[in-house]
Amino acid sequence: MHVVLPDGKRLDVPKNSTGAEVALTIGPGLGKAALGIVVNGELRDLLSEIPEGANIKIVTTRDPESIDLMRHTLAHVMAQAVIEYLVAEGEDRPSIRLGIGPVIDAGFYYDFDLPRSLTTQDLEQIEKRMRHIIAADLSLEKYFVERDDALRTYTERGDPFKIDLIENIPNDVPITFYRQGGSAGFTDLCRGPHVPSTGRITPHFRLMSIAGAYWRGDEQNTMLQRIYGVAFKEEEAFDQHLWQLEEAKKRDHRKIGTDLDIFVLDEDVGPGLPLWLPRGAILIEEIERLAKEVEYSAGYQRVRSPHLAKEQLFLKTGHLPYYQEDMYPPMQLENTTYFIKPMNCPFHHKIFAARPRSYRDLPVRLAEYGTCYRYEDSGALMGLMRVRSLQMNDAHIYCTEDQFEEEFLQVIQIYFKYFELFGIDDYVMRFSKHGKDGLGKKYVDNPDLWLKTETMVRNAMQSANINFIEVEDEAAFYGPKIDVQIKSAIGREFTLATNQVDFAQPGRLGLTYIDEENQKQVPLCIHRAPLGTHERLVGFLIEHFAGDFPLWLAPEHVRIVPIADRHSGPAEKLRKQLAKAGIRTEVDSRSERMNAKIRDAEIYKVPYIAVLGDREVDNETISFRSRKEPNRNDVPVTGLINHLSTNIDARVLEILPID
Amino acid sequence: MHVVLPDGKRLDVPKNSTGAEVALTIGPGLGKAALGIVVNGELRDLLSEIPEGANIKIVTTRDPESIDLMRHTLAHVMAQAVIEYLVAEGEDRPSIRLGIGPVIDAGFYYDFDLPRSLTTQDLEQIEKRMRHIIAADLSLEKYFVERDDALRTYTERGDPFKIDLIENIPNDVPITFYRQGGSAGFTDLCRGPHVPSTGRITPHFRLMSIAGAYWRGDEQNTMLQRIYGVAFKEEEAFDQHLWQLEEAKKRDHRKIGTDLDIFVLDEDVGPGLPLWLPRGAILIEEIERLAKEVEYSAGYQRVRSPHLAKEQLFLKTGHLPYYQEDMYPPMQLENTTYFIKPMNCPFHHKIFAARPRSYRDLPVRLAEYGTCYRYEDSGALMGLMRVRSLQMNDAHIYCTEDQFEEEFLQVIQIYFKYFELFGIDDYVMRFSKHGKDGLGKKYVDNPDLWLKTETMVRNAMQSANINFIEVEDEAAFYGPKIDVQIKSAIGREFTLATNQVDFAQPGRLGLTYIDEENQKQVPLCIHRAPLGTHERLVGFLIEHFAGDFPLWLAPEHVRIVPIADRHSGPAEKLRKQLAKAGIRTEVDSRSERMNAKIRDAEIYKVPYIAVLGDREVDNETISFRSRKEPNRNDVPVTGLINHLSTNIDARVLEILPID
Repeated sequence: MHVVLPDGKRLDVPKNSTGAEVALTIGPGLGKAALGIVVNGELRDLLSEIPEGANIKIVTTRDPESIDLMRHTLAHVMAQAVIEYLVAEGEDRPSIRLGIGPVIDAGFYYDFDLPRSLTTQDLEQIEKRMRHIIAADLSLEKYFVERDDALRTYTERGDPFKIDLIENIPNDVPITFYRQGGSAGFTDLCRGPHVPSTGRITPHFRLMSIAGAYWRGDEQNTMLQRIYGVAFKEEEAFDQHLWQLEEAKKRDHRKIGTDLDIFVLDEDVGPGLPLWLPRGAILIEEIERLAKEVEYSAGYQRVRSPHLAKEQLFLKTGHLPYYQEDMYPPMQLENTTYFIKPMNCPFHHKIFAARPRSYRDLPVRLAEYGTCYRYEDSGALMGLMRVRSLQMNDAHIYCTEDQFEEEFLQVIQIYFKYFELFGIDDYVMRFSKHGKDGLGKKYVDNPDLWLKTETMVRNAMQSANINFIEVEDEAAFYGPKIDVQIKSAIGREFTLATNQVDFAQPGRLGLTYIDEENQKQVPLCIHRAPLGTHERLVGFLIEHFAGDFPLWLAPEHVRIVPIADRHSGPAEKLRKQLAKAGIRTEVDSRSERMNAKIRDAEIYKVPYIAVLGDREVDNETISFRSRKEPNRNDVPVTGLINHLSTNIDARVLEILPID
Repeated sequence: MHVVLPDGKRLDVPKNSTGAEVALTIGPGLGKAALGIVVNGELRDLLSEIPEGANIKIVTTRDPESIDLMRHTLAHVMAQAVIEYLVAEGEDRPSIRLGIGPVIDAGFYYDFDLPRSLTTQDLEQIEKRMRHIIAADLSLEKYFVERDDALRTYTERGDPFKIDLIENIPNDVPITFYRQGGSAGFTDLCRGPHVPSTGRITPHFRLMSIAGAYWRGDEQNTMLQRIYGVAFKEEEAFDQHLWQLEEAKKRDHRKIGTDLDIFVLDEDVGPGLPLWLPRGAILIEEIERLAKEVEYSAGYQRVRSPHLAKEQLFLKTGHLPYYQEDMYPPMQLENTTYFIKPMNCPFHHKIFAARPRSYRDLPVRLAEYGTCYRYEDSGALMGLMRVRSLQMNDAHIYCTEDQFEEEFLQVIQIYFKYFELFGIDDYVMRFSKHGKDGLGKKYVDNPDLWLKTETMVRNAMQSANINFIEVEDEAAFYGPKIDVQIKSAIGREFTLATNQVDFAQPGRLGLTYIDEENQKQVPLCIHRAPLGTHERLVGFLIEHFAGDFPLWLAPEHVRIVPIADRHSGPAEKLRKQLAKAGIRTEVDSRSERMNAKIRDAEIYKVPYIAVLGDREVDNETISFRSRKEPNRNDVPVTGLINHLSTNIDARVLEILPID
């Protein structure tokens, strides 16, 4: 028989050759270096027989595919080490059962059902044993077992997980096992592929953590212990990844959000419903102030609407047919069904409709920081990034078709303004279009209008030379949209802002304006939220700035540290003086040592720490440490107030020099 | 037999004397002037027999009781007139059925079941006939009818309402009828009392309106037509009342709220859930800004909380046992019950509990403009005064017992500050205490703590020389409170602000702080809302100012009226210039005549109307009309901007002179 090499050449090999044999046929050096083989585009190990005429590529450590082979074998090595370790610790072998052990991004894991909970100390021991197994360079063997034999073996052992796995393997797929270290070693039901022997595994791996995981992810099932490991071929990539993980842990908005008193989640309140502590509320109010200023100057009018409404409103807008699964469940009141709002648009449409409108009034831009509530599965919730309460920087622009392009692009310009202010440069604009199959189900059933509005959006974006990518089947139910996806400093990707065309709801709700010819027309509606929601934006900003917020946003501008008790009175007087100028100031009047107080202020990343002793009190000055400026002594109080006020009002990210 | 006169003298009268006979016995003049008689404190007419030894007072037109007799007889006169009028119009007498016709504040009404709807024109005709009946001076007769006879008569006539009334008269009460004008006149089932003849009725009455009214106020029953009338003895009181009604109609916040585009209620959204139009949202945001400034300077911290939470939160706080009937119905989500919040306090308690607290941190003052939702029967809802969505100027102060008095009084001082700003001088402070019978039902069952905290409140108020009245059985479920009741310009009375002690919830939720001795203590909590809710406050302010808001609050500061089309460009430029200075400005660029535009701006009560013609454009000046200042021509633009900015920032109610 023959196989075809990557360069297209045919190679004759004996019938039923394995990957290892093919590699040897190509050359003894490659035979030695080979770790696996890609057969017709699929990664396999060297133990498999190669079919006649297959396109093959031998995989060595140079090839990116090799790390997946190593990670998979690492999972087996870890399982062997766990068993050996626990048995050596006195546990019964039959009390140790295995789930699955797949390859994942950057590493691998294995799920175990064990007689006791593992600790971090256990992980160190297990990792040590893994390195022994690797040093022993055990060969991996692969063999086939009859389905019935396999089931019998596991039934005798009382191993429900492997039985479950075998029962889910289709009948025409053979049952394969992998074994390393012979019969005294480790054997596992497995599809492969693996490296030929444990000695071929990269030394750049580490066991990272243990976590609970339900069998097959179903909380009705047994909870297993999952051990995560990371592994890279090169030391540099390995170190880089560990550093990123470390950084991510430090910057994680859930950690900083707790450490800096920004928000809490409370079991009695409910999942996905954050409570904003005073420092978090300051972040929110500063962001709101910013948005209101921008929207005021861009000609928006503010409105307010309730958080619930009758079912009939959401039926008219079309939310109930298209969107109910994302809504909170109904309430029954006086024979009427009410829903908590998942979106503000139905209310803004009603406000538009509350007065007769002429073409002279358009565009009408109605803005509201409205809190919406959406149902997310509790398993999908994550800190501030995925929540159930969404306080949105929302607005709806009602305009004529002629006004559409200018209005749509004004929204995009507002995006850019915010990106610049926050220093966001890693983003993608996604143009989400409808999908034909969803018409009448996920999407309003009007194919012509979909194409027309999608063309309007594309033209607008192109005319302004804005880069974007087009994606199918991700539109809103009422029209196409531009979403902005950003990446947080620790690599979390999510949608921040949105700009959507709505050609459906205004007509459904009977919104009209009188045109120049005195005819009734239905306006277009643009739904937009350049700052997304408070929840997600604050989550993002925490990670983006690692909690070290720009001055205008910082929950506390100045912390005053009186050196001795006798300076507490003057400190309080100074606090009032600063507070009156709108500078958020706190006094640390505890009887701690000065250095301890300074350290605490640094933990809270307070931009200015003002130390107050005899000299400062006598001279009406402040000596301060700053996070972004040189430390200064004996600055007149009024000088500092001016300096800070100017910087706060200018919303600058870099501090201006003090004069 | 004898009766006792008001001066204590006995008067001998024949047995079974009626009121009329007693009056005649006293003297022929009084016999003639008499309209009714008060017997043992109860007002009766002259037709009743007087019991032996009764204390009596003859009622003449000089006595205040006389108007009630007249109003009651007016209801009968109106019923007679309605029947005569409709029969003369060709309707069948049997198709006209009567409900009840009582005396009310300032007048009377009667409910009718009629073959057709009455109009305002009908009312004029009916009133004319009433004046004829009065001029005819028909005598009123009273007679008794056996219950069975009365029922038979009404059954034959097919009159369900009177049958219903008779069936509800207790068996030991005789059935009485009144007749005027003999058998050709008008007869009605009635308890009385009445004046002796129709000629004795005041001419100062008017039929005011027709409205639908369900029989016995139950919407399952027939809808009747209710005709309202007002009547006064003296012309002056009558005119005054009509003027007040007129004024009330003009100032009614529902009318002004609609005319001035402040809010709307929408059938699809639901009753009691106002939508705030842009002008209303400005009122709200200005009030919020005011409250935030006051609270910032008083040391409050702002927080934010979601609008719903798990049932278990409201069980822990005690809302569910004591307050559920005022809450929206539950929602079921993922096997958990959620409620929309009726109050913000549970969330603030959670925020207090989210961090360890020391005595050094107290008082902690947590403020939020949180929107709560409460169930009010849809029949009880009224404009913005009684709603289901309540956006509250809320805060909770956690303090030690020693701090209580100062904190409680600081809240009262904040009330006074607001009263002064808004010019509110007609208010009452009500100190609401618990009622013993409600302990364990409406009130937390701890009598000692009730008495203790009530004493604390009383002492605090007395020490500050604040006037208040004490009322029993009106406390919150968790403690005593001070409510402020104010009267709007058109006499509507309601509770605006509240200041409540809470000795129950902090303990129930396990809130603690560490005291000077390093011991855990439970803080006291003060619930306070000096500005009440946006809904009620804005409703009040609309009526208080008749929509003519002080400058800082006015939704639109300046309206620019370009004289000709060629001034529209400069007008828009001027608008931007003013807007940039934070002055809310609109341009009326319609092709209407200047006077029409000025009139429209006056309807909206815009404080400044700036007319822009050639001269103003050339000179960069403004000529303006002002609601509270003399009109001025050719004021430099910068002068006006300074003048307005200063006044707006100073939140003055009276305009400062322009320089």
